[in-house]
Amino acid sequence: MSRREGSIDVDIAIVLYPGFTALDAVGPYEVLSRLPGATVTFAAETADPVLADTGRLALIPALTLAECSRPDVLLVPGGPGQANLMEHQPILSWLREMHSSSSWTTSVCTGSLLLGAAGILEGRRATSHWLAMDRLSRLGAIPVSERIVCDGKVMTAAGVSAGIDMALVLAGELAGSVVAQTIQLGIEYDPHPPFGAGSPETAPSNVVQYLRDRSRFLIEGDQRSVREPDS
Amino acid sequence: MSRREGSIDVDIAIVLYPGFTALDAVGPYEVLSRLPGATVTFAAETADPVLADTGRLALIPALTLAECSRPDVLLVPGGPGQANLMEHQPILSWLREMHSSSSWTTSVCTGSLLLGAAGILEGRRATSHWLAMDRLSRLGAIPVSERIVCDGKVMTAAGVSAGIDMALVLAGELAGSVVAQTIQLGIEYDPHPPFGAGSPETAPSNVVQYLRDRSRFLIEGDQRSVREPDS
Repeated sequence: MSRREGSIDVDIAIVLYPGFTALDAVGPYEVLSRLPGATVTFAAETADPVLADTGRLALIPALTLAECSRPDVLLVPGGPGQANLMEHQPILSWLREMHSSSSWTTSVCTGSLLLGAAGILEGRRATSHWLAMDRLSRLGAIPVSERIVCDGKVMTAAGVSAGIDMALVLAGELAGSVVAQTIQLGIEYDPHPPFGAGSPETAPSNVVQYLRDRSRFLIEGDQRSVREPDS
Repeated sequence: MSRREGSIDVDIAIVLYPGFTALDAVGPYEVLSRLPGATVTFAAETADPVLADTGRLALIPALTLAECSRPDVLLVPGGPGQANLMEHQPILSWLREMHSSSSWTTSVCTGSLLLGAAGILEGRRATSHWLAMDRLSRLGAIPVSERIVCDGKVMTAAGVSAGIDMALVLAGELAGSVVAQTIQLGIEYDPHPPFGAGSPETAPSNVVQYLRDRSRFLIEGDQRSVREPDS
């Protein structure tokens, strides 16, 4: 990876697996693919289309993991499919190997649990989806309830949409803040959520409790849709 | 479309076309697919994978436009590929037909230019990517520089990332604010952009000018990556 005159020569690999959450992967892709000189590649165990957690969307990987040359930036999205891979050695050893030579090893949402299962978070500060924070410590990490957590070259983001913020931080690290701001304006990332319910600290307590009660399904299962919580 | 006990029976179609911007489609999908009882379907002219504007990501449509039954919600993403469709009657007449029976007709980013080309925005208030606002008036719309603009059943969003905000507004309209807040907390949408450059009003002037100078490429072309603007 080299940096020159606002353009960088950087390979970024985003790992796909069945049951990933689409926005975890596509949010960062949308930011990082606009980096001048960057190549963003989706990679998966096989060349088949990879079905996201809803079963209604599939992404086509450009490369298999075996074909993927060592990326400068490794990005692991989250999603309930992660639970099936926590002891899946082909993925875990691939993550360890890529991490050994990466400039940045990153994750979104429960992608950090896969980094943890691969032993990459041992003794490191890290974050995850707010419903999965307790699992991080069981994997040897030091859980930190922040939107983006950086420990050395390992950068982890909170749930799903936090990957967009993380990718902008990473864009700034890779190509400087002016390029990162240009990307931000290009995707008009001036968020105005219509509600203030984006974190467990600010959401109504019945909404928080509703999701807590279903955390096992939401983090590991295929039961993604929500119903109106009891008020 | 019916609504009962926090669950709704609603068909949502997201139109794909070559050169769409992935986050325009996947952001709203990630929100709307979590609506209880909602079915989100990607539809395109043919059943082939549809390549996004970067050429590095393809989505597989579930249905062709001809197979797609009249959706309750129609969503048109933007992207430079839109420019090739402004006189493409098969898409434009399909949009008009679906709009004639939809409950909501919506767009993200330059998707509103396609709605305009189909005659759907005639005399309506609408928005688009900030670099494309002047084109809206040429299509008979009344351009409004807001993140989300609602005129009757037509809801348009500003550039790329604004589709997430719009989808949460739409989720609230379709299933009520408690369900929408539950989805927001599920995707941990508590945005903290590391820079304040998300709108032309708040971005540094050299960043704004840099993108303005390239607006033709960014809105219509395949030249998406940015370089460091002169400071």
